[in-house]
Amino acid sequence: MKKMMISALIVLLAGWSVASAEDGSQLWLRLSPAKTAATVTGVKGTAMAELQTYWTGGPVVLKRQKGLAPDAYTIKSQDGKTLISAANDAGLLYGAFHLLRLQETGQTDGLDIKETPAYDLRILNHWDNPNGTVERGFAGKSIFWGDKDVLATPHSQREKSAEFAAAMKTYARANASVGINGTVLNNVNAKPEALSTASLEKAKDIADLLRPYGIRVYLSINFASPIKVGGLKTADPLDASVKKWWKDKVNEIYRMIPDFGGFLVKANSEGEPGPQDFGRTHADGANMLADVLKPHKGIVMWRAFVYSPQSPDRANQAYLEFMPLDGQFRDNVIIQIKNGPIDFQPREPYSPLFTAMQKTPMMVEFQITQEYLGAANHLVYLAPMWKEFFSFVKPNSLKAMAGVANIGDDTNWCGHHFAQANWYAFGRLAWNPALTSQQIAEEWLQQTFGAQGNLSPLTSHLSPLLQLMLDSREACVNYMMPLGIHHIFAGGHHYGPEPWYSPKGVRADWTPPYYHKADATGMGFDRTTSGSGNVKQYPEALCQQYNDINTCPENLLTWFHHVPWDFKMKSGRTFWDELCHKYDDGLRQARHFLAVWDAMQPYVDQQRFQEVQHKLRIQARDAEWWRDACLLYFQTFSKRPIPQDMDHPVHNLDEMMKFRIDITMYENPDYGYTK
Amino acid sequence: MKKMMISALIVLLAGWSVASAEDGSQLWLRLSPAKTAATVTGVKGTAMAELQTYWTGGPVVLKRQKGLAPDAYTIKSQDGKTLISAANDAGLLYGAFHLLRLQETGQTDGLDIKETPAYDLRILNHWDNPNGTVERGFAGKSIFWGDKDVLATPHSQREKSAEFAAAMKTYARANASVGINGTVLNNVNAKPEALSTASLEKAKDIADLLRPYGIRVYLSINFASPIKVGGLKTADPLDASVKKWWKDKVNEIYRMIPDFGGFLVKANSEGEPGPQDFGRTHADGANMLADVLKPHKGIVMWRAFVYSPQSPDRANQAYLEFMPLDGQFRDNVIIQIKNGPIDFQPREPYSPLFTAMQKTPMMVEFQITQEYLGAANHLVYLAPMWKEFFSFVKPNSLKAMAGVANIGDDTNWCGHHFAQANWYAFGRLAWNPALTSQQIAEEWLQQTFGAQGNLSPLTSHLSPLLQLMLDSREACVNYMMPLGIHHIFAGGHHYGPEPWYSPKGVRADWTPPYYHKADATGMGFDRTTSGSGNVKQYPEALCQQYNDINTCPENLLTWFHHVPWDFKMKSGRTFWDELCHKYDDGLRQARHFLAVWDAMQPYVDQQRFQEVQHKLRIQARDAEWWRDACLLYFQTFSKRPIPQDMDHPVHNLDEMMKFRIDITMYENPDYGYTK
Repeated sequence: MKKMMISALIVLLAGWSVASAEDGSQLWLRLSPAKTAATVTGVKGTAMAELQTYWTGGPVVLKRQKGLAPDAYTIKSQDGKTLISAANDAGLLYGAFHLLRLQETGQTDGLDIKETPAYDLRILNHWDNPNGTVERGFAGKSIFWGDKDVLATPHSQREKSAEFAAAMKTYARANASVGINGTVLNNVNAKPEALSTASLEKAKDIADLLRPYGIRVYLSINFASPIKVGGLKTADPLDASVKKWWKDKVNEIYRMIPDFGGFLVKANSEGEPGPQDFGRTHADGANMLADVLKPHKGIVMWRAFVYSPQSPDRANQAYLEFMPLDGQFRDNVIIQIKNGPIDFQPREPYSPLFTAMQKTPMMVEFQITQEYLGAANHLVYLAPMWKEFFSFVKPNSLKAMAGVANIGDDTNWCGHHFAQANWYAFGRLAWNPALTSQQIAEEWLQQTFGAQGNLSPLTSHLSPLLQLMLDSREACVNYMMPLGIHHIFAGGHHYGPEPWYSPKGVRADWTPPYYHKADATGMGFDRTTSGSGNVKQYPEALCQQYNDINTCPENLLTWFHHVPWDFKMKSGRTFWDELCHKYDDGLRQARHFLAVWDAMQPYVDQQRFQEVQHKLRIQARDAEWWRDACLLYFQTFSKRPIPQDMDHPVHNLDEMMKFRIDITMYENPDYGYTK
Repeated sequence: MKKMMISALIVLLAGWSVASAEDGSQLWLRLSPAKTAATVTGVKGTAMAELQTYWTGGPVVLKRQKGLAPDAYTIKSQDGKTLISAANDAGLLYGAFHLLRLQETGQTDGLDIKETPAYDLRILNHWDNPNGTVERGFAGKSIFWGDKDVLATPHSQREKSAEFAAAMKTYARANASVGINGTVLNNVNAKPEALSTASLEKAKDIADLLRPYGIRVYLSINFASPIKVGGLKTADPLDASVKKWWKDKVNEIYRMIPDFGGFLVKANSEGEPGPQDFGRTHADGANMLADVLKPHKGIVMWRAFVYSPQSPDRANQAYLEFMPLDGQFRDNVIIQIKNGPIDFQPREPYSPLFTAMQKTPMMVEFQITQEYLGAANHLVYLAPMWKEFFSFVKPNSLKAMAGVANIGDDTNWCGHHFAQANWYAFGRLAWNPALTSQQIAEEWLQQTFGAQGNLSPLTSHLSPLLQLMLDSREACVNYMMPLGIHHIFAGGHHYGPEPWYSPKGVRADWTPPYYHKADATGMGFDRTTSGSGNVKQYPEALCQQYNDINTCPENLLTWFHHVPWDFKMKSGRTFWDELCHKYDDGLRQARHFLAVWDAMQPYVDQQRFQEVQHKLRIQARDAEWWRDACLLYFQTFSKRPIPQDMDHPVHNLDEMMKFRIDITMYENPDYGYTK
């Protein structure tokens, strides 16, 4: 199932590293089976099995207890035993994994813990296609799907295999260990055949394998399915035959998957069909689906990611389209909103819908896969980005949390060993958004690179790696898009810089100049009240702060303002000089990360050491590419020199402008600028 | 004649630069013709013509005066006139160019100058082949030759053209302006047809064009010419028919070129034929040629660059082969010895022959073309390297100075605008080895980038560029081969690093491991008295100093010693850490050069600014390639970490080891490591 990662093992270095090899396939769950089975009594099930296998401490009692919220648990040390209590099996399982985590990271004595998840729904969105490719996936092929023709291939060939079951079990255990309890099995850009009976049979197999770990499955649906799968002439949500088709289809699903979670819908967005095709609203569409799911306790997650090519400001549109519908959705509909108003950029302000919508259940959609953050090549720990979102949006104003998964069939699951930390952090924050980025990183590091088997103890050496992780997102912002710059990525693959990308015939809002608007006077998108007015979508205090170039946070400056090249920054530098220095800072940080990692060699197994080193080298080279491409391109507008107190570009703009990455390397990125 | 350099003009930047374009074709002779012809009286000739065209000051009198050495001159301000006196026309010409240089760089009043050249012979060696290619040439094709079949093409087609004459005039003026008075027209690896009548007719045309500027021509000869051109059965120098053939050939040459200078000979070296093929000595061969040239006042320059694949230390061999012959050469033979005992490395100790030979005329052979110093891509000002040589070898122990030219038919003559400085510096040092590197660089900078035509005055901005030039050779040593490392270049083209290069079947002394000898204990070539004994070829005091690892200069440490990785350096660092830091220093210097140059943009014309910037960017990237390749390769032996207080390699050793530069790009290098 898992294929070997393409690694650049330097054979000449073999034998130097003191630690033996690991391939990362065990994620952060590197527990060795206990030599003698632990004494675990009480409620039988997955929690008991996990503890019996891995727990090395004294007796544990698993107890069902009323009065606790679903999935919540308590852990108490009592009379030489450890007592885990919960209202449901999932709660016991989360408690068991909590105890095992403590075994790896801290104390297991004198416990008096009570944990209740912030959200009932903590869900991964897999953008996996039936043919096994993964949209914006950088870790190989889909772990769920792999058929050239999903309709023609019977499910027993693959989904019934022991290898598949083992992969699903590892995936489910990893999710359960951090509290994730839902998974959308297919791409939001959904193929109609996802709802074919053949495909649903496969989904049922997967659901059966995930169920023991408390994970319910969901499906993305194509809104035109009644036409494309059902043979109807319309998919109008108010049409009776359409409603019937959906009702029958939902009944079919629940016969196969009794605990099926519901649908995720991308409608009337980027060419996908939706209710507007039939003169209906998002509410009409979502509510029709909600009604047929309601009897089964299923839900609809309806995405707010909509924008049209005609709009002068893409950032305004989700708000404009959804605010009039506030209060019109059924109670089993949740509007799924990306954290920022554009699209998963290294830094965006929060989407103003979150503070504007008052009468509609909302959930945030984070992107764990690094579509815009260096794919699986760059080490970027995302918890600080998500925590930044929660510093603006109150966690309890949301109903759920979704993350676009970064998971594929690579041996190490995520393409980059440190990308596992983002899967981990997403789960932990979905359980408890009050956890700090540092707490989560410490937990993950200790479990992932801490003492285990033959490894030397890493604990005392954790600090530099911890700092590296905590600095990594800001470093990425610095070398890619500092000071509020956004979406100056290469067309199509979104990997490297192409701030100049603007071919004829491509819609303007898919080209960087639409966003950076660099000219002789300055750069940035004027979203003030005298510009696109986007600031007015924010609460009054923020609106005022963002609207004034002198009070707008500098890290969002060109997001909200067209900033003059000579604008005086808080550092005393001009905007142009500050921009140069930010890129330089990012490059120096990326280079520093390499030195930090290289020093870990004595403490990390050879395989993971070399694979991470290989990636960090790409990252450092890419950071240089970003600096050079962006500064030399923007310099054609600013006509100002690059400051003397920093390193200067080493590449040539004309050559960088000719460079294109071979997109055939998409799944397993091992690329960067070559000159 | 001159073709356009391949330049990467960034069109987007057009219009930014304030200064208009120059192409470098005028070298440092960027004098504008004076608006009214100066009053120049006295001896008619080239000196008078130059002054009439370019001198903008008061009346000048040119006077022949006995008692001055050949080529020497005086310049005196006297009664409102400037008086230039010399014993010969060449002396007057050098005086005229001196005065014009003062016009560009300083005062022309109150002059009382007397200049006498240190050497009678100041000569360029062109490694140009009859087909127009240039061995180790990085500035295009030959300026002299360009025929696919030199024997078949009549000389009138090319050598009689106005374009060719103009190029020869610029070349001759440039040489005369710095005192160069001889030129070897063809490669030391000489084709026999160089002595064919067809080829000699072309040489005559060239000699006629260069003669007005005091430049005599010389030819490299193939020692087997009597066989290959003359049809004899032998080239034994003691054979009467061979002697007669050479006598007839020399007579033929002098009938065509009455002031022909003589022969340069590479014999019994790297596969070239020589007297040893017939059981004779270098002295036998050189003396035979000297005897036939003597009546015409011609000379023989006989190269000491010899080494055999069997020797355990190539550095020992020139000494071993030539010392027994000391005193056996005719007085019109000069032994031409490369500055170092191996081959034009970024740093070598001086060749011990220079202090050992007492009874034989010697000349030093410097390499102006940057075979081992980054070709025409790297800015490396070579005067400091040559001055370093003269700090060990007394200038007056030599009879002449030769430089392997870096000249080709590129528009800017040398491939890199700053490579012109090395041509300039060679000439100035051949005239006066006591000049400092700084004096020469100042002169050249002021003439080459100083105020002229529309250019802004550069004078006050010279300092950073001057420092850049002065630092550049040590920077190159740092990023290529610090601490005495030598000859770890890529096989064949000698451009990038290939310390691992050691393919089967290649003779050992043509592979880097022969020189660096890295192993688990350390690296370096043990040339001490307990090693190859090479130190014993040096005078006693130096021998003792070099022999002891604790007194050996650190910049030659691995040249003379196999240095333990943990050897304590004067900095307090281990040898390994010091090595790492030297590479890091070099990289940081190369990057700094870019920043220095970028700041020159307002003061330099756009074309030269961009062309130099393009080259400096390659240099900075190459410096990173060198650091990464060398440190990662040597680390496979040292098994020590790279220090934390420096940037770490960003490339992967296995990928660098697979990389080969496309040698078809040889003439006009625009390459480097691509990953």
